[in-house]
Amino acid sequence: MRYLDTEEIENIAIGAAVLGTGGGGDPYIGKMMAIQAIKKYGKVKMITIDELEDDDLVVPVSTIGAPTVGIEKVASEEELTASLDMLEKVLGKKAKAIMPIEIGGSNSLIPVAAAAKKGIPVLDADAMGRAFPEAQMVTYHLDGHSPGAVTMSDEKGNTLLMYPVDGQWSERFARAITIQMGGSAKMCDYALEGIHVKKSVIPNTLTLAEDIGKIIRGSRKNGLNPVKELLNKMQGYQLFQGKAIDIRRRIQDGFTRGEALLEGIRDDKDRKLRLFFQNEHLLALDEDTNEPVAITPDLIAVLDLETGAPITTEGMKYGARVVVVAFPCDAKWRTPKGIETAGPSYFGYPYEYQPVEQLAEKRKGCLA
Amino acid sequence: MRYLDTEEIENIAIGAAVLGTGGGGDPYIGKMMAIQAIKKYGKVKMITIDELEDDDLVVPVSTIGAPTVGIEKVASEEELTASLDMLEKVLGKKAKAIMPIEIGGSNSLIPVAAAAKKGIPVLDADAMGRAFPEAQMVTYHLDGHSPGAVTMSDEKGNTLLMYPVDGQWSERFARAITIQMGGSAKMCDYALEGIHVKKSVIPNTLTLAEDIGKIIRGSRKNGLNPVKELLNKMQGYQLFQGKAIDIRRRIQDGFTRGEALLEGIRDDKDRKLRLFFQNEHLLALDEDTNEPVAITPDLIAVLDLETGAPITTEGMKYGARVVVVAFPCDAKWRTPKGIETAGPSYFGYPYEYQPVEQLAEKRKGCLA
Repeated sequence: MRYLDTEEIENIAIGAAVLGTGGGGDPYIGKMMAIQAIKKYGKVKMITIDELEDDDLVVPVSTIGAPTVGIEKVASEEELTASLDMLEKVLGKKAKAIMPIEIGGSNSLIPVAAAAKKGIPVLDADAMGRAFPEAQMVTYHLDGHSPGAVTMSDEKGNTLLMYPVDGQWSERFARAITIQMGGSAKMCDYALEGIHVKKSVIPNTLTLAEDIGKIIRGSRKNGLNPVKELLNKMQGYQLFQGKAIDIRRRIQDGFTRGEALLEGIRDDKDRKLRLFFQNEHLLALDEDTNEPVAITPDLIAVLDLETGAPITTEGMKYGARVVVVAFPCDAKWRTPKGIETAGPSYFGYPYEYQPVEQLAEKRKGCLA
Repeated sequence: MRYLDTEEIENIAIGAAVLGTGGGGDPYIGKMMAIQAIKKYGKVKMITIDELEDDDLVVPVSTIGAPTVGIEKVASEEELTASLDMLEKVLGKKAKAIMPIEIGGSNSLIPVAAAAKKGIPVLDADAMGRAFPEAQMVTYHLDGHSPGAVTMSDEKGNTLLMYPVDGQWSERFARAITIQMGGSAKMCDYALEGIHVKKSVIPNTLTLAEDIGKIIRGSRKNGLNPVKELLNKMQGYQLFQGKAIDIRRRIQDGFTRGEALLEGIRDDKDRKLRLFFQNEHLLALDEDTNEPVAITPDLIAVLDLETGAPITTEGMKYGARVVVVAFPCDAKWRTPKGIETAGPSYFGYPYEYQPVEQLAEKRKGCLA
């Protein structure tokens, strides 16, 4: 157990945006909400899964929707916990801890803000180990858990409770409601007891995000190469250095979908890379060979070439000079069910999943 | 208080399809479900609003969606009461009676089937006095009631509870969910206590539907003109006799939308009439003058020219020989709030509302 103060939040915000692979909401929004809540309610206790009792109710609190909308539709303090309040009422049980459903942009820190307001701890874990665009793309789903009672709320005061038969139905309903709620909404799903949480979640990911944030911020201060330091820490791969020369982004079906074409610079000056995203980066394709260089569920992150600062799919601008990196996903995503749930075919990409390590091996010489 | 048996159901089914102005779901489906339930559980007690205690909970049970889908997606017995069961659980109070939210096709009889299964009475009343396509188009909304706790369910076992801030938000969410549920779903909204129900509903509309059914079936047996008998009973107007020469129907936004062009026969052989519908018939336009001959919220019904049998917007076929009739709507719909809620502008028709009596007066000689 330890406490999160504003300094920790600054680091988590940066690290979560790296792990968020371009999505998970805008990190600035989540940071501001968490800092504001900590200033008002005090530091937030963060516990590990080992500190959970078997019957402790752990509730994920998140924002669902298109990041493009999320940055313009910031949640009020009331909205922040409206879904949780409804859920507690329905279950007749109080949450013992709040957790992030994903590590990414705002969705890693909105739970911290909610925990501050409710005066309960946040759990140092999440259910993706990264960010994914759809609600059923969680380790709970891989382990056969249903989303249970799912609650949603918006800034107008609308609240909603569903008992979908499984994770896919939850996603379908929640997405349709999110669109009606204006493209972004607050949600609680997969509220489970400690005994299940401990087995299913990916532990210590808030701490991992914090460590990444420290590395990136620290390297800048100490004149080190932040990307290199990060790749060392994460056993990651540098895929490409380039400049964004074409970005297409649309809000469709409640997601921010699109692609970005990067023209190589430095060692990559004869190559081009195309990134495909649905809220998160999901596929990095060599534009000449049409071969994937990294593919979901592995993590693809875009960082500022100089500062190492993570760039969201929403925030990438024409002309941005970036480095594209990739990290192996958690082993849970490399199982048949993991690949079925969040692999390339699910998103309609005509490629087989290949671990980023193998792809890097193939390309040799492109290794960081 | 009296009991509804299968004979009453046969009559209500026909009359409700007339009052349903082409919508409210397929009358055959509702009839079959009600008859099946009565055979299994026994006759259904029907009470009037005068028999309600002030604190009796009265719950509308309905099908929401496109009639085109509803006829292919018949509810199971379980689905019939799943929304009601969830609502009772949430409110912690049992329904004293079930009521139709609208008088129309299946939606007047599904409540009878649900009442049979639950062993409670059905209320002889509804909240439209006709059928309308959208959830907020109810007298409860006109009287300032919110939909309260709204529940929905589907045949897969998905259930959902909403607290929308008002009727329009309820419609938006419910429609989006209905589309995800496959275009048709079961719903309870505006569950209110007797004290409010008595003041807001349009009373005795199941009995009115039954009377209309008796007239149409009886006229056939006795060699009378069923349309003439019906117009006498309802103080209605015959608008047009003709043959359907063009029907366009599409499922859009969870509704069956479209129009039908009728070529005149008999006295109307030099005229053409165009009907516009969104689940229900909403506008009858003289094709030559482009002037409305009847317009929502007044009731427009299409009947078989020979038998007087009501024809739904979904059931109208090319070449059908029909008579188009109109009846004045309940006075509640002719108030400013009524017109705002379900008048021509709401549906995007570029006409002012004019009562069918005035339009008939204008056209003189066209009166039945």
